[in-house]
Amino acid sequence: MAQNDTVKLLGSKSSPFSLRARVALHLKSVKYEYLEEPDVLKAKSELLLKSNPIYKKVPVLIHGDISICESLSIVQYVDEAWPSEPTILPSLPKDRAAARFWAQYVDDKCFESVDAVAGAKDDEGRMAAAGKLMECLVTVEDVFQKNSKGLGFFGGENIGYLDIACAAILGPVSVIEVFSGVKFLRQETTPGLIQWAERFRAHEAVKPYMPTVEEFVALAKQKFSVQ
Amino acid sequence: MAQNDTVKLLGSKSSPFSLRARVALHLKSVKYEYLEEPDVLKAKSELLLKSNPIYKKVPVLIHGDISICESLSIVQYVDEAWPSEPTILPSLPKDRAAARFWAQYVDDKCFESVDAVAGAKDDEGRMAAAGKLMECLVTVEDVFQKNSKGLGFFGGENIGYLDIACAAILGPVSVIEVFSGVKFLRQETTPGLIQWAERFRAHEAVKPYMPTVEEFVALAKQKFSVQ
Repeated sequence: MAQNDTVKLLGSKSSPFSLRARVALHLKSVKYEYLEEPDVLKAKSELLLKSNPIYKKVPVLIHGDISICESLSIVQYVDEAWPSEPTILPSLPKDRAAARFWAQYVDDKCFESVDAVAGAKDDEGRMAAAGKLMECLVTVEDVFQKNSKGLGFFGGENIGYLDIACAAILGPVSVIEVFSGVKFLRQETTPGLIQWAERFRAHEAVKPYMPTVEEFVALAKQKFSVQ
Repeated sequence: MAQNDTVKLLGSKSSPFSLRARVALHLKSVKYEYLEEPDVLKAKSELLLKSNPIYKKVPVLIHGDISICESLSIVQYVDEAWPSEPTILPSLPKDRAAARFWAQYVDDKCFESVDAVAGAKDDEGRMAAAGKLMECLVTVEDVFQKNSKGLGFFGGENIGYLDIACAAILGPVSVIEVFSGVKFLRQETTPGLIQWAERFRAHEAVKPYMPTVEEFVALAKQKFSVQ
């Protein structure tokens, strides 16, 4: 029996995590079929329930007969399953460990703060959460300044694992900036991240698939039925 | 300047996550100095604060001038930095992705349930949390049955990444079994895990460093000052 090597990505335009998987696939020039999950918050497709029965969340990469879930795992899988250049994870074990650590920091601390700002019950709670989010972004700025060495991306001159991980925060941060009227990415505190975000958005493996700020806001309004 | 290649592990006997790092180092026959963090819940050592300023938690692997934090990252780092046999992560990308997925499941879902049982405010809450923990363990049993192919460990005949990840749950489960009087690992529901746990504990890279059930209970009593 011939091996089934078809690649499908089950994602959602409004999911910042789906973006990670798409960027990884495009960086590696992997041909795949993109399947937009109709409405991730309401009815879930049979394919999603079958391919990610534990979390029932996008993105899911379906490669032949196997399903890979969780966006950071998908990025690592893509890097390993298609080992041709460019590599996504750094080559040195210490750099790989650092990239994994900060990627996890984005998912734990940054997204926790984003959710806290978005879900705050009152102004006091919102201010406290906003302060924590700013602290997180300043920490990420510091990581960027120490590691990019003026070359543009977190690991140097090419997009890598930590760029892909951090990029997921850009959409949600844009959205809460618009809704809260608070600027989180500021020249005074995160000048490196502002330039990095522009560079990332403009990259050929990203530009066609990453929503603009306006599209992110429109998707968020649609998702939460805010008129 | 000669590269500083000394290896130190900052850990705690009562931390199930420290155990992961120790097992990985012993599997790879890495010589290291073990530094017991005196009291992880109270005063933290200067070395811990300096080497893990973000989370301030053990384990931390200090290799020369760099610090690696988070137990699963440490295990991956050890596998990559000392690439000699035995390998800890599986060799195929699909198996690596599956091992990472289930390791994360242990850290998210299993530990969430353990914490919910331990922190339940009343019997009703405790019963609900206990039910969820049992569901999690049955899911892990299912993963074990499908992957071990009767060879003893999650990835076959040798201890690997998922064994090390899952082993962290054994101590906490033993402790809440003693405190709650409820048996979570049962012959009827998790026969594979019961045999696997015995096999894991008896392994030469584990036995000298893994507390017995009695020692886990004594450490927990000491930690929470339960007399």
